[in-house]
Amino acid sequence: MNATIVTIGDEILIGQIVDTNSVSIAKRLNNIGITIFEKLSIGDSREVIVSTIERAMNNSKVVIITGGLGPTKDDITKHTLANMFGSRLVYNDTEGEHVRQLLARRGIEFTELNRGQAMLPECCTVLHNAHGTAPGMWFDTPKGGVVVSLPGVPFEMEHLMEDEVIPRLKARFELQSIVHRTLITRGIPESLLAARIEAWEDALPKHLHLAYLPAPNVVRLRLSAYDVDKEQATTEIEAQFDKLRNLIGDNIVGYEGSTLEALVHDILIQRGKTLAVAESCTGGAIASKFTAMAGASNYFLGGVVAYANEAKRDILGVSMDDIECFGAVSEVVALEMAEGVRRITGADYAIATTGIAGPTGGSKQKPVGTVWMAIATPEGSRAVMRNSGTDRGQIISRASAYAIEMLYEEIKNNTNK
Amino acid sequence: MNATIVTIGDEILIGQIVDTNSVSIAKRLNNIGITIFEKLSIGDSREVIVSTIERAMNNSKVVIITGGLGPTKDDITKHTLANMFGSRLVYNDTEGEHVRQLLARRGIEFTELNRGQAMLPECCTVLHNAHGTAPGMWFDTPKGGVVVSLPGVPFEMEHLMEDEVIPRLKARFELQSIVHRTLITRGIPESLLAARIEAWEDALPKHLHLAYLPAPNVVRLRLSAYDVDKEQATTEIEAQFDKLRNLIGDNIVGYEGSTLEALVHDILIQRGKTLAVAESCTGGAIASKFTAMAGASNYFLGGVVAYANEAKRDILGVSMDDIECFGAVSEVVALEMAEGVRRITGADYAIATTGIAGPTGGSKQKPVGTVWMAIATPEGSRAVMRNSGTDRGQIISRASAYAIEMLYEEIKNNTNK
Repeated sequence: MNATIVTIGDEILIGQIVDTNSVSIAKRLNNIGITIFEKLSIGDSREVIVSTIERAMNNSKVVIITGGLGPTKDDITKHTLANMFGSRLVYNDTEGEHVRQLLARRGIEFTELNRGQAMLPECCTVLHNAHGTAPGMWFDTPKGGVVVSLPGVPFEMEHLMEDEVIPRLKARFELQSIVHRTLITRGIPESLLAARIEAWEDALPKHLHLAYLPAPNVVRLRLSAYDVDKEQATTEIEAQFDKLRNLIGDNIVGYEGSTLEALVHDILIQRGKTLAVAESCTGGAIASKFTAMAGASNYFLGGVVAYANEAKRDILGVSMDDIECFGAVSEVVALEMAEGVRRITGADYAIATTGIAGPTGGSKQKPVGTVWMAIATPEGSRAVMRNSGTDRGQIISRASAYAIEMLYEEIKNNTNK
Repeated sequence: MNATIVTIGDEILIGQIVDTNSVSIAKRLNNIGITIFEKLSIGDSREVIVSTIERAMNNSKVVIITGGLGPTKDDITKHTLANMFGSRLVYNDTEGEHVRQLLARRGIEFTELNRGQAMLPECCTVLHNAHGTAPGMWFDTPKGGVVVSLPGVPFEMEHLMEDEVIPRLKARFELQSIVHRTLITRGIPESLLAARIEAWEDALPKHLHLAYLPAPNVVRLRLSAYDVDKEQATTEIEAQFDKLRNLIGDNIVGYEGSTLEALVHDILIQRGKTLAVAESCTGGAIASKFTAMAGASNYFLGGVVAYANEAKRDILGVSMDDIECFGAVSEVVALEMAEGVRRITGADYAIATTGIAGPTGGSKQKPVGTVWMAIATPEGSRAVMRNSGTDRGQIISRASAYAIEMLYEEIKNNTNK
């Protein structure tokens, strides 16, 4: 079972927004056993929309479209689809009333443009959008396929997929399963890893597909099986992963989309230990990675973003003499920050960062990208320096990752801690 | 001048990664006057790669491909392209030596697989990848177009685009300009905004394209002109925006990709005022929005992520009696947090958040999504409560946006402050 995902909107083609809709749709379709054949993004042009959807219907039983359903003149998806399926637009009382009430609750006047949002192709099944003013549309195609049009607002699209589209697809088609399992390795470069596991890779059964997903210091290995029985494929993949554990066990750090911060999160909750962070150059990025995860309040006591030197001194108790003598970006200050936040929060573990995120502030001795990271534990503290690149965003994200990695290394094996 | 962007990799089709490469490529091509006709993502399948590139070459003079150039067996882009262009792979000494040295610097052994990365189609122009082991490839097509293949690692791709691809495209084609300008409005819903500016919209010259980009509480209006003289089109768009200022001036809050935090950033720097934040439920998200911007150290003194009640008390001086009496999520505590962080940092302005990000912790009186936001200024402090949705990520992002909006409202007009 194949699907094509089409996102419509010039804002995608000019790079004004990052398309996350197709990511979420792809995941949901994969979950119910539908393989994505192709994802594409096209502009708000009638001819392109028509030719794209016609081609997509030839390639895939299911075509999911997002975007172009708003009330304004640049939104042409609905009219184009009505034309394509030879259907006229008729006013839908239920949807019209819903839009009127939704706007009334927000204190917004119901205009002719809003009325237009309840004008829907006669031939489609209307998918009620409880969270917005643009309903979704489900078209059955002559060849037994389905074309679904959804609004581009991510939140509205998500609810429509979950509540209206997925249940209908499951009822409509006999679906097999797709199974993906991803294993995360650290410490072996991709090419050496490939050499180490070559015999294993060559012996994989044909229906298990291996992918290498390299990132700095991490290579993820994904095994995928399409159109299979879920339990059987999962067991089979697990057995293959068991073999890998024998080959590269020490380098395996986790599974399935789990990030290092998620692993730390799990370990801290499991052991009943607590964490605090003190951030200078990462500016809250580390705190927000942890607090983004449900359950963080079980271990995350607090964080201090000590950007100004006075904040380092007044909140964390860093010595101003040390800042003057060694600089704010130094081993001494990183250690005092970690120890300071550990002391004031009473946390078991603390990590700290201080560095030069740029673009200005660098010097010959300490160029932009220089970051000191420290960890303070019940047993003591230590710091390391890493150069984290040249781009501000990259420096913040790498320094955050390194600091979390220090913590992970500290706690991963020590079950007494 | 049209281009098609093709990203290759099953990880994109199954929703395992968000494709940001095509966003960055689209922006860079737009900057030099090349319009994106279509963006598409396909899997690691030989036939699909071939048919997609053939179709893309029919639609566009320029085809940019990313992904599938790694050293492992699932990387098939290079062999597929060599086949398509009827070329054999030959060992490239320069690139081979570069890969060997790059790996040596990282202390990694040079294997047969790495050697394979320097095997390149004889017919292509090799694009040197200074930052990685997979070179880019530039193919001239028989019909006078160009197919470029780049590695999927974002950092490597960026450098190759900037240093190798863009200069070659500018030299190769006579390019006109594309101009996009975006204006940000607040406080008018999309449908009412469209009604207010209808006459203006209808009178726009044919070559200026208007797009509405709605988001919660904000509608962005973009005017785009393709294949034009840059200066002339910019002047023309500015003149149209002048007319809009007469119609909806009070609702215009900024231009071109500027976020509210960027506006606050500019105002604070301009007036020499300082900021501190105290975050509970937003967990560092607000601090990291500000500190992500270059120059934040001019005004951002610090932040406290006071997640545990003890951290609210010990770092910010929030009264434990008040927490017990009113709850951590309350007007009183929000105010004490804002005032506390303002006091300990000495900042001119402080904002604070305390709320229930979920998924647990809600009650009938205070359901998940309840967030109190406070602002403390030289003139006093105040707090508001907003319900910010039901999803943890959404609650964090909305509450951050509301708190920043409070600050923006406070400082936008008051030039004395």
